[in-house]
Amino acid sequence: MTIPAQSSTLDVRVYYEDTDFSGRVYHASYLRFMERGRTEWLRLRGFEHRALSTESGLVFAVRGVHIEYLAPAVIDDLLRVETRLAGAKGAVIAFEQLVVRGDVRLAQASVDVVAIRNGRAVRIPRELHERFERAEAMSARA
Amino acid sequence: MTIPAQSSTLDVRVYYEDTDFSGRVYHASYLRFMERGRTEWLRLRGFEHRALSTESGLVFAVRGVHIEYLAPAVIDDLLRVETRLAGAKGAVIAFEQLVVRGDVRLAQASVDVVAIRNGRAVRIPRELHERFERAEAMSARA
Amino acid sequence: MTIPAQSSTLDVRVYYEDTDFSGRVYHASYLRFMERGRTEWLRLRGFEHRALSTESGLVFAVRGVHIEYLAPAVIDDLLRVETRLAGAKGAVIAFEQLVVRGDVRLAQASVDVVAIRNGRAVRIPRELHERFERAEAMSARA
Amino acid sequence: MTIPAQSSTLDVRVYYEDTDFSGRVYHASYLRFMERGRTEWLRLRGFEHRALSTESGLVFAVRGVHIEYLAPAVIDDLLRVETRLAGAKGAVIAFEQLVVRGDVRLAQASVDVVAIRNGRAVRIPRELHERFERAEAMSARA
Repeated sequence: MTIPAQSSTLDVRVYYEDTDFSGRVYHASYLRFMERGRTEWLRLRGFEHRALSTESGLVFAVRGVHIEYLAPAVIDDLLRVETRLAGAKGAVIAFEQLVVRGDVRLAQASVDVVAIRNGRAVRIPRELHERFERAEAMSARA
Repeated sequence: MTIPAQSSTLDVRVYYEDTDFSGRVYHASYLRFMERGRTEWLRLRGFEHRALSTESGLVFAVRGVHIEYLAPAVIDDLLRVETRLAGAKGAVIAFEQLVVRGDVRLAQASVDVVAIRNGRAVRIPRELHERFERAEAMSARA
Repeated sequence: MTIPAQSSTLDVRVYYEDTDFSGRVYHASYLRFMERGRTEWLRLRGFEHRALSTESGLVFAVRGVHIEYLAPAVIDDLLRVETRLAGAKGAVIAFEQLVVRGDVRLAQASVDVVAIRNGRAVRIPRELHERFERAEAMSARA
Repeated sequence: MTIPAQSSTLDVRVYYEDTDFSGRVYHASYLRFMERGRTEWLRLRGFEHRALSTESGLVFAVRGVHIEYLAPAVIDDLLRVETRLAGAKGAVIAFEQLVVRGDVRLAQASVDVVAIRNGRAVRIPRELHERFERAEAMSARA
């Protein structure tokens, strides 16, 4: 899995809250870091959860995650979350995400997200779709 | 601070998620444990957050916490959360709460909670008030 | 994926801490629930994280998770986590896990865990292996 | 409570993980934000938890928190955590902390922290003390 430089990146510092008694970062913390990464990916494309929710009644829900943990992180580490759109079709937005520390890959994941309205998965609104595609096209040209 | 036997108690097991790299339970985890304790206290009196929210538009928000940490907890500990109503006046419900392991006090707190409707603190609905008082009267007689 | 009745089950109540602003249970909360389920599975077989850590220098780390979210949970739901050993070979213990609410499947996952000593994955100690096998043999006969 | 401009500040974005089903930021999330703030305060003075732990066997534990919640935060909010040393004596370091959104105070807290070595509270090491005092003296002159 290669994530190009044009993808979104987010720096994440490891705090007490992210660790567990084994001395390492708790495995579920990576899902929180990756969710932050997807949120910033969306924000870069002009979308915020609050506006989507209050104006369009849209929230996102994770449909599936396939994550591999490759190396541990510890307190005070500065991590980077890399987020790339892998595809968007029907109701599903597919992301590829990495958590790295410098050159070391700590975790990699495929995450499928669906748009929800009134409690049901709905097709991704065309406006989102278009902005996603435009952003990806720009990335591809870069 | 003495919490009588008639108060609600909730057993809480310490898991990986509750600990941090120092090997102890993370300080904010106790606030989660106490919130669980208040939720069970409410449930025993016939109230559930979901019903209050969907039927009455009521949610609760914490207004203030004064917590002292007396001794540490570690992974696998079985803790007990004790919850007692200290008073309910206007919009504010005041709780006294303890987290203990056997005879050892680990944390004690005063927690003020307010009822919120449409984003604003509101007087505690009479129905809640009456059930709270009835429950306390029964406790006092026991 | 079928998880037999003999597998470990753990009841989990949904609290404020588990939900997010979408009104549903946050996706990473299921990983916490499942970790609780694996901990109780271990405890039933005679192992506790604290003793393993202090006596044998062993802690567990999650190596991979493949989780599918099938239906949402909300505040006050009473969930059940079902945990079954799918295999244990070399350093890796493979679990199959379900989160259900009554008859409804909310999430299902395959989780690979490794035993760690001095920061490195090690073969699962024979003592654990034997107790796991005994437990599984008993399940198979039941 | 006034926190001078010289104190440490940390920007914190509100993500899904920080909110609850009421639509607001969960009350215990503020304790996580403030712990991040104290960690950055320490880092600015040349200390990191990892080095303190591995080189000096020192970890920190929260002894007490008095927090008031003044206004709610919601998803996507950009918050600022302000952290000021209020005093350091014996084993206890006292902080005053604020969480603000622009000009609006959302939460304010007094947090007492102790240094722990081998499971016991110990006097704050002189080296920490001196660096804290130097930093405060510089703040006072500024």
